[in-house]
Amino acid sequence: MILGKVVGTVWATRKDEQLVGMKLQLVRELGLDGKLKSKFVVAVDSVGAGVGETVLFAQGSSARQTELTRNKPVDAVITAIVDKFDTK
Amino acid sequence: MILGKVVGTVWATRKDEQLVGMKLQLVRELGLDGKLKSKFVVAVDSVGAGVGETVLFAQGSSARQTELTRNKPVDAVITAIVDKFDTK
Amino acid sequence: MILGKVVGTVWATRKDEQLVGMKLQLVRELGLDGKLKSKFVVAVDSVGAGVGETVLFAQGSSARQTELTRNKPVDAVITAIVDKFDTK
Amino acid sequence: MILGKVVGTVWATRKDEQLVGMKLQLVRELGLDGKLKSKFVVAVDSVGAGVGETVLFAQGSSARQTELTRNKPVDAVITAIVDKFDTK
Amino acid sequence: MILGKVVGTVWATRKDEQLVGMKLQLVRELGLDGKLKSKFVVAVDSVGAGVGETVLFAQGSSARQTELTRNKPVDAVITAIVDKFDTK
Repeated sequence: MILGKVVGTVWATRKDEQLVGMKLQLVRELGLDGKLKSKFVVAVDSVGAGVGETVLFAQGSSARQTELTRNKPVDAVITAIVDKFDTK
Repeated sequence: MILGKVVGTVWATRKDEQLVGMKLQLVRELGLDGKLKSKFVVAVDSVGAGVGETVLFAQGSSARQTELTRNKPVDAVITAIVDKFDTK
Repeated sequence: MILGKVVGTVWATRKDEQLVGMKLQLVRELGLDGKLKSKFVVAVDSVGAGVGETVLFAQGSSARQTELTRNKPVDAVITAIVDKFDTK
Repeated sequence: MILGKVVGTVWATRKDEQLVGMKLQLVRELGLDGKLKSKFVVAVDSVGAGVGETVLFAQGSSARQTELTRNKPVDAVITAIVDKFDTK
Repeated sequence: MILGKVVGTVWATRKDEQLVGMKLQLVRELGLDGKLKSKFVVAVDSVGAGVGETVLFAQGSSARQTELTRNKPVDAVITAIVDKFDTK
């Protein structure tokens, strides 16, 4: 999984019907120093993550292993809200 | 998913028969600042996205989870036309 | 899919038996400006693409969705020969 | 698989229920010169790897092929603790 | 597939039991000019490739399509020993 921060939201009216009702969050990758990287993805939110929260997201076929995303055309999903991380 | 803009179209007469009838769009990645990146993919269009539209595309096995692309040799599919995105 | 140009061929006698009989082409990625990039892959050819031709190739599990490559240890396959591409 | 070093741990209370009980380790990629790279992932630990240990991790759908991670929304898993590696 | 050269071996005693008996090779990517790149992976060897040999390796779920690696937590496998490659 990748460490990221939710920085915004995407709105889309015309979309694959399997995406209806899913919240699409903009998630920027986060460095171990806590700084935002430029790289970002649009991830489906399966845990109620709000803008500003630090999260983990899974990619690829693993992103379809949540109840919300199973068999859907989704390749990135937020799976956890991070309380803290330690590096030594 | 990745944020992109449709910038063109690819024509191919000789191709895997499973691709017949699919529209192949050139999609450049888009930054959060709205500027085009140099990175691009060729994605199957499942939502009727035209040149100039901002879209989301899914990659990998998730690109085969639309009705149009199921079990096809397709690794990128446009799944949504973006109305707007907000970053805070 | 990725836009590329076939630039050569790979010969391998000792290989997984599932690869026997497959043509292994060197494919360099192509920019929208028509210039070759340094990045390249070795892709199985499922459409009879010769050296010098512009092609599309699919990667990952999607590369196993052609008749030739199904269930084979192949992660890149040429799926189309490009007639032309337009960008606006 | 990728060579890495465990450099820390991630704590997350609110998460997909399938992740409950899994240890989430921060793993930085390691060069052949033994130096840490800046690139890192958050990987589920399936072998009891502690901070400071050199490990191998698998990514993508292959990360779901351990007993611990099967069918879970996990895209990176530590599969081995490295005793040593030689390069010639 | 990616063109690479076997440059070394990894030893790991504590590992996922599904990896027992597999040879883990360090494989550096090779450029079309025959020069080693810095990027490398740890790949399971399914064809008896020794250090110094030029090989092809497959990644992702395709790396699990050999007899040796099926359903194993392996995301990179050497599938061929390269006799030669030509570029024009």
